[in-house]
Amino acid sequence: MDVVDVIRTKRDTGVLSDTQIDWVIDAYTRGVVAEEQMAALLMAVFFRGMSSAELAQWTAAMIASGERMDFSSLERPTTDKHSTGGVGDKITLPLTPLVAACGGAVPQLSGRGLGHTGGTLDKLESIPGWRATLSQAEMLTQLRDVGGVICAAGAGLAPADRKLYALRDVTATVESVPLIASSIMSKKIAEGTSALVLDVKVGTGAFMKDVEQARELAVTMVELGAAHGVKTSALLTDMNTPLGRTAGNALEVTESLEVLAGGGPSDVKELTITLAREMLRVCGADSGKDPEDALRDGSAMDVWRAMIRAQGGDPDALLPRARHTHVVNAPDSGRLVRLDALAVGVAAWRLGAGRARKEDPVAFGAGVELHAKPGDVVQAGQPLLTLHTDDEERFSRAIEALDGGYDIAAAANGFTPSPLVIDTVGA
Amino acid sequence: MDVVDVIRTKRDTGVLSDTQIDWVIDAYTRGVVAEEQMAALLMAVFFRGMSSAELAQWTAAMIASGERMDFSSLERPTTDKHSTGGVGDKITLPLTPLVAACGGAVPQLSGRGLGHTGGTLDKLESIPGWRATLSQAEMLTQLRDVGGVICAAGAGLAPADRKLYALRDVTATVESVPLIASSIMSKKIAEGTSALVLDVKVGTGAFMKDVEQARELAVTMVELGAAHGVKTSALLTDMNTPLGRTAGNALEVTESLEVLAGGGPSDVKELTITLAREMLRVCGADSGKDPEDALRDGSAMDVWRAMIRAQGGDPDALLPRARHTHVVNAPDSGRLVRLDALAVGVAAWRLGAGRARKEDPVAFGAGVELHAKPGDVVQAGQPLLTLHTDDEERFSRAIEALDGGYDIAAAANGFTPSPLVIDTVGA
Repeated sequence: MDVVDVIRTKRDTGVLSDTQIDWVIDAYTRGVVAEEQMAALLMAVFFRGMSSAELAQWTAAMIASGERMDFSSLERPTTDKHSTGGVGDKITLPLTPLVAACGGAVPQLSGRGLGHTGGTLDKLESIPGWRATLSQAEMLTQLRDVGGVICAAGAGLAPADRKLYALRDVTATVESVPLIASSIMSKKIAEGTSALVLDVKVGTGAFMKDVEQARELAVTMVELGAAHGVKTSALLTDMNTPLGRTAGNALEVTESLEVLAGGGPSDVKELTITLAREMLRVCGADSGKDPEDALRDGSAMDVWRAMIRAQGGDPDALLPRARHTHVVNAPDSGRLVRLDALAVGVAAWRLGAGRARKEDPVAFGAGVELHAKPGDVVQAGQPLLTLHTDDEERFSRAIEALDGGYDIAAAANGFTPSPLVIDTVGA
Repeated sequence: MDVVDVIRTKRDTGVLSDTQIDWVIDAYTRGVVAEEQMAALLMAVFFRGMSSAELAQWTAAMIASGERMDFSSLERPTTDKHSTGGVGDKITLPLTPLVAACGGAVPQLSGRGLGHTGGTLDKLESIPGWRATLSQAEMLTQLRDVGGVICAAGAGLAPADRKLYALRDVTATVESVPLIASSIMSKKIAEGTSALVLDVKVGTGAFMKDVEQARELAVTMVELGAAHGVKTSALLTDMNTPLGRTAGNALEVTESLEVLAGGGPSDVKELTITLAREMLRVCGADSGKDPEDALRDGSAMDVWRAMIRAQGGDPDALLPRARHTHVVNAPDSGRLVRLDALAVGVAAWRLGAGRARKEDPVAFGAGVELHAKPGDVVQAGQPLLTLHTDDEERFSRAIEALDGGYDIAAAANGFTPSPLVIDTVGA
C-alpha cells in the first residue's frame, strides 16, 4: 500500500476503502506513515469529509490500534458522558458521583485541557494528593466499590487517537466533524462503557459555533456509537456564556462541591441533573433514585468523597488559591445582557488556568470568578469579575481578552434567557 | 507569529499576508516550522490556491531562502529552458550546446528524475567520467569558454524549494499550480538567467493532463518571471506520446547525439530547433546564426563535446548498454494510432531507468526503444518496442505497464497527427 495513493484518493474526492483505512491508521500508529503524510491526509479530510461508512471504519481502526476495556463483569450498567468542551464546564465533577449514587457505574476517562477550555484532570489535580493514573484493575475495583471513577486514559487505549490528536492540534486540522467524532468516539468506545451521553456545546466558547454544525457532529457521533454497540444519545447545550460562576481549576472544584452539597449556580445544577437522568435512562439503570434527591440527601456527596479518597486525595483539604486577585467593576449601571464564554475562557487561560503547549503546567488557583450572569442587573462600580493569578503580570493580557466580552444595556429593556439545553439527538 | 494561525488563514480561504509568507518560508527552511505543519499548509494551498500577489511573495521568499547567482559579467546574454517533464524528453541535451553555438549563454541547472519522467542529470551521468557538480566559479568559467553548462543546482540555491519539493513528493501535494510554478521559478530566477523559455508539457505523460491546466501554469510562470525581471515565455507542447524513439538514460544520450549530428527523430529535432529559436529571441542574442544551420555544420556538436569534456566526460566513450533486451511485437497489422507516453514512461521506470525514492540508483542502460510512432503502419509480428534492462525479472511488470498503452487500427483509416507545439504564451 502506498500512502501517497491514499492521500491522493482522499484529496481527489475519492472514498477510501476499508483496507486503505485500516492500513493507514495502523501504519501511522506504528510510525511507518510519517507525521507529514498524516498531516496532509487530515487536511484533505478537512476539505473532503468522510462518508458514514468511511468514518465507521476509520473509528474502528483507531479503536483496534489499542486495547478495549471490558466492564461487563460489573453488576451495575456502565454509563458515561462526554462534553465537547466549554468554559466553566465542570459538570463531570458533580455528575460522576451523582450518577453512581443513583445506580449507574461511571468509567469516566478524562483529559487535560489545551487552549481556552479546561481539562477535568487539571481540575481534580488541584485537590491535594489526588492522582489521575489508575491501572485497569484499580479502575474496576473502584467502579465496583464506589460506582464512579474519573482518571486518565491509559496509553494502551486508542493510541492512534493520541498521536492524531497531538498532530491535529499543531496542523490546524482540529475543526473537522469526522475527525472530532472519531477522536471522541474511539476513546469512549475503547473505554468499554455500555451507554454514553454526549454534551455537544454550541456557541462562542465551543468548537461548534452554530447549532447546525453541532447537530451534524451529534448525529455523526450517535450513529458511530450505535454502529459499535454503545447506546448513545446527545444533548446540544448552550456555550455562549460560561457555565456557572467560575472558570479555573480549584475555583471549579469549589463550585462543584456547592452543587454536591445541594446548592450551586442554577445552570450547573440544571445541566448536571439533566445529564444524570439521561445517562441513567440510556443505560437502563433502575435504582429508583432520582438525581435531584441524591443531591439533596447527601448521597452524591458521599460518593464524591469516596472517589477522591480512593484516588489518594483528601476531600477535606484546603484547595490552592491564587496569590493575586484583581476585580473588574461594571463600567455602567444596567442589565448584563452578554458575558462571552470565549472571552472569559481566554482570560482564565492567560491567568494561568490553561496551557498553550501539552508540556506546560497549569496554575491550580488561577481563573475567573463571575459575580453576575446574563440577565442580572448591575450597578456601575459594582464587582463584575474577579481575576485570580499567581503572576501579577498576567492581569493586563487577561483584561485585554475581556475587552468587548460583555454588554450592559438599559435594565428596563428586560431579558430573555437562551435555553441551556437546545435539543436532544438520538434519545 | 503562530504557524497554526497561518495554516488556518489559508485553510479558511483567507489570503496570507506578505509577513506571514516571508515568516513561514524562512521558519520552515530553518526547521522552526515542522514538516507536518508545512504539509498541512501545502494541502490547504492545494485546495484554496494562491492569489497572484501571494504567489509572487511566496516565490520571492523561496528565492530569498538562499543565494542568487549573477552572470551579468558575461558578454553573451544568458538564456535558459525548463521543461515541466515528459517521457523521452531529452531536449535539454542537444538544446544547450545548440543555443550556445548560436550566441546564447545557457546556465542550465538540472535535476534528477523521480517517478516516470527521467532527469537530465541521470542521462548525462551515463557518460563515463561526466560529473554533475560544479562550483559557481567553474560554472562561470565554462559559460564564458564554452557557452553552455548543464549541472546540478548547488545546495545554496533556493534551499526552501529543496525541502518543499521533497515534502510535496511524499504528501500528494505535487499537483498544484501555484506550488509547481513557485518551485520551478524560484530555482530558475535564483539561477540568474536573464531569459527563460518554459516547455509546459500537456498530455498523459505530463503533470498537466489538459491544455487549460497547462495554460494556467504557463501564464502563472510567465507572470512570475516578469515580476522578478526575467524575460519569460512558454510553449505548450504535446506529451501524449513519448518524444523521439527512446526513453531511458544512455538510450536518450545516443538519440541526442543523432540530433546534434544533423539527424535524429523529426519530433525531437523540431522541438529542439523551435525552443532554441525562442531562447535566442527572448534573450536578444544576435549572432545571426540559425539553429538549423548550427546542427547541419557541426558547430552545435562541437559545443557538446567541449561541454562534456569540461565536466570530465569522454564524448567518445561507449555508453552503458543493458544486459537484457525483450522485443514487444505488434499484435496486429495496421496503423499505430496511439502510443501512450505514461505507459512507456512507467515501463522505462520499472525497467530501472527511473527511481522510486530519491536515494535509489538508476540503471543507465535501461529503458524503452520505440520502433514505430503514431501514424506509422506496422505488420503483425513486427517489432514495436524493445525493452532494455539489467534485471530480467523486471520485464513482466514493464510489459504490464504497456498493457492497453497502444492502439493499432485499420491502416486505410488514415491518421491526423496532433501538433507538437500547441500554443505559445507571453511571446
